Amino acid sequence: MTDSQDSDPSRAAAAVSEARQWDRLMQLAKLGAIPGDGVNRPCLSSLDREARRLVIAWAEQAGAAVSIDAAANLFLRREGTDPSLAPVLSGSHMDSQPEGGRFDGIYGVIAGLEAITALNDAGITTRHPIEVVAWTNEEGGRFAPGCMGSMAWSGHAPLTSWSHVADQAGITFAAALAEHLACEADLPHRPLGGTPHAYLEAHIEQGPLLEAAGRDIGVVTGIQGSRWFSVTLIGASAHAGTAPVGLRRDAVQDMVRALNALNTLMHDPDDTLRFTVARIDVTPNTSNSVAGRARFTIDLRHPDAAILHAKGDAIAATVHAAIRHCEAVIEEHFTADPISFHPVVVEAVADAAAAEGLTAQRLPSGAFHDAQFVVPLAPTGMIFVPSKDGISHNPAEYSSPGQLAAGTRVLARSLVALAR
Amino acid sequence: MTDSQDSDPSRAAAAVSEARQWDRLMQLAKLGAIPGDGVNRPCLSSLDREARRLVIAWAEQAGAAVSIDAAANLFLRREGTDPSLAPVLSGSHMDSQPEGGRFDGIYGVIAGLEAITALNDAGITTRHPIEVVAWTNEEGGRFAPGCMGSMAWSGHAPLTSWSHVADQAGITFAAALAEHLACEADLPHRPLGGTPHAYLEAHIEQGPLLEAAGRDIGVVTGIQGSRWFSVTLIGASAHAGTAPVGLRRDAVQDMVRALNALNTLMHDPDDTLRFTVARIDVTPNTSNSVAGRARFTIDLRHPDAAILHAKGDAIAATVHAAIRHCEAVIEEHFTADPISFHPVVVEAVADAAAAEGLTAQRLPSGAFHDAQFVVPLAPTGMIFVPSKDGISHNPAEYSSPGQLAAGTRVLARSLVALAR
Repeated sequence: MTDSQDSDPSRAAAAVSEARQWDRLMQLAKLGAIPGDGVNRPCLSSLDREARRLVIAWAEQAGAAVSIDAAANLFLRREGTDPSLAPVLSGSHMDSQPEGGRFDGIYGVIAGLEAITALNDAGITTRHPIEVVAWTNEEGGRFAPGCMGSMAWSGHAPLTSWSHVADQAGITFAAALAEHLACEADLPHRPLGGTPHAYLEAHIEQGPLLEAAGRDIGVVTGIQGSRWFSVTLIGASAHAGTAPVGLRRDAVQDMVRALNALNTLMHDPDDTLRFTVARIDVTPNTSNSVAGRARFTIDLRHPDAAILHAKGDAIAATVHAAIRHCEAVIEEHFTADPISFHPVVVEAVADAAAAEGLTAQRLPSGAFHDAQFVVPLAPTGMIFVPSKDGISHNPAEYSSPGQLAAGTRVLARSLVALAR
Repeated sequence: MTDSQDSDPSRAAAAVSEARQWDRLMQLAKLGAIPGDGVNRPCLSSLDREARRLVIAWAEQAGAAVSIDAAANLFLRREGTDPSLAPVLSGSHMDSQPEGGRFDGIYGVIAGLEAITALNDAGITTRHPIEVVAWTNEEGGRFAPGCMGSMAWSGHAPLTSWSHVADQAGITFAAALAEHLACEADLPHRPLGGTPHAYLEAHIEQGPLLEAAGRDIGVVTGIQGSRWFSVTLIGASAHAGTAPVGLRRDAVQDMVRALNALNTLMHDPDDTLRFTVARIDVTPNTSNSVAGRARFTIDLRHPDAAILHAKGDAIAATVHAAIRHCEAVIEEHFTADPISFHPVVVEAVADAAAAEGLTAQRLPSGAFHDAQFVVPLAPTGMIFVPSKDGISHNPAEYSSPGQLAAGTRVLARSLVALAR
């Protein structure tokens, strides 16, 4: 297949500027910079607005039409030859974790902007418009949960669901959003929602697999499923000096029994299953009073729904069989089934990587992303670039200028292919 | 051996009033009463002073001479026929745990007062004076550590050691003590310290052994030794969704490995050793970030110094051998060698119980008591009465009027024997 010059994806990719993209990322990293090359830029903050104004200025230089919706999602539209067609949407988020890095989220926004700038520079036209989006509050660091912008936009939940959620200063999401929208009252508004032709999000991997395998590009096949539980063990507190061990109802000791049994249940020779116990709360949590209560969380993830369901459903029985002295209360707090991305988008990414001569690996995303809320509305996919040492949500988060540019070349090619 | 009427221990025991003692304990339990029949009476508080005024009034009714020292330790002296002789000292403390019961500490003070009142009523004389003492701040609930009054009195540490220790309201121990001494400026002062002829403390067991064995009286042979440690495991936090289990340095998982190995090390078929892990602090302690750090405490106790030393000394090597991915820092924060009480006092208690027709069991104390600081100065011992379900430091703490009176009869007999 040959392309005419004004729709040749390789010309689009070739016009991607590694230096311009890196420079923009480093300019943005100054807004909320924290020690160790990190970033703390909460959503809907004045830092967030400064960052958005930078991005808007770059978008306007690129001739993109800027608009925002009622959730403060920011859209940068590069028109297609048929403006009546649904846009191909690409983006991510601009907010950071409280002790976050310079690339999580913001890379996907700047990569989208770089891609449309490259299309301009290469004189590429597409039939479908291409829109770059910056979703509001993906991280959930200031207002929990995350992904509010994409959830409201996709109709997953109404925007008012989180009106009363307050940040640590007591400011509600509704108040912060109203303040923010007032600050951006000069920007054109668009209705909340839409049905894009396709959605493609570039993101850092936030895991070690690409680096370990020596691959340039992650062709993301979907998002693994998650089930989150808590296990509360109720025993009886007692004096650490006087209570014989044999007569205790020690919640810490039953927790150890439960964790041993759960470790056996969750053992996966393929190391695909993610079983994490990362929060433990003991009561009264004093060194010389036997624990009367211990609560721990379970974060269970797997890309295969059948395995996720089987392992998750076995947790309660495993805990009950393992413990000796306590009552156990097992609660499930969150479930997300595995999501498969659309073959049209997945193959567009794979083809683009191959055409660029980059090494690629298909893998599911271990983390959540805004992309999952777009899946019900349009063919969706993601591109990953390697994360140094797999580190993310940390100032040490790093991907090199070359790795980031490679991801953007794949994005630019894929967008041309999808918007053709 | 026969005793003349004015020194017959059985007459002293017979004069102990179960009703009077119970009534006094219940009057005191109103001062700081909390739901569930509990007591919250911090040391050096106005509630403490109200309680002390009640006790002082009863002591004065019994003809005892009241005095306090610089640590606010309260003494109630029943004169002996030879006032130049060292007194036999008996008592405990009047402060409670923040969510404490009606008997811990205060029983030993009221039992001492009941004993000297019974000696009066029975017309008993003793050569040695008998002094009842209420030690300041045994619990450490308001100002840590506990046993400040007995430590200062015995010369274990100077009273100024804790001047700057502050309670949760920011009031220093020095300020609270000064305020307290001003409120009790009407009471005669005595020098801090002394060398008693003997010391005998009555206390609730705070453990389940006497009740389980169906015994009336615990003949306390000493106080078991303690070693307190913390173990800090330093791994690396990571994203629970993206970090493969095999690549993690998960501090919670290494904690489980360490606890399994420590449980094996500390297993005691005799159930004499007390191994308690009751405080766990995980960082960052969020459900979806692999634990980068986990710290747990070890409270290890045993009445045999050799076993205590061997087991405690093996902790570090056991932890290091068990863990796989973390660095471990093991610190020892406190050591108290086992203490043996003096045979003269121990046998006086055993003889008294036998003479009263009570069933008795020899046992070490699992908990700390003021008595341990008197050991270097004088022959020392303790009497335990059963604790329902072994519960203490809890509003549900309970010993029956009859159980408490039996303990006081043993105390009265023992005091007569020791002060003879």
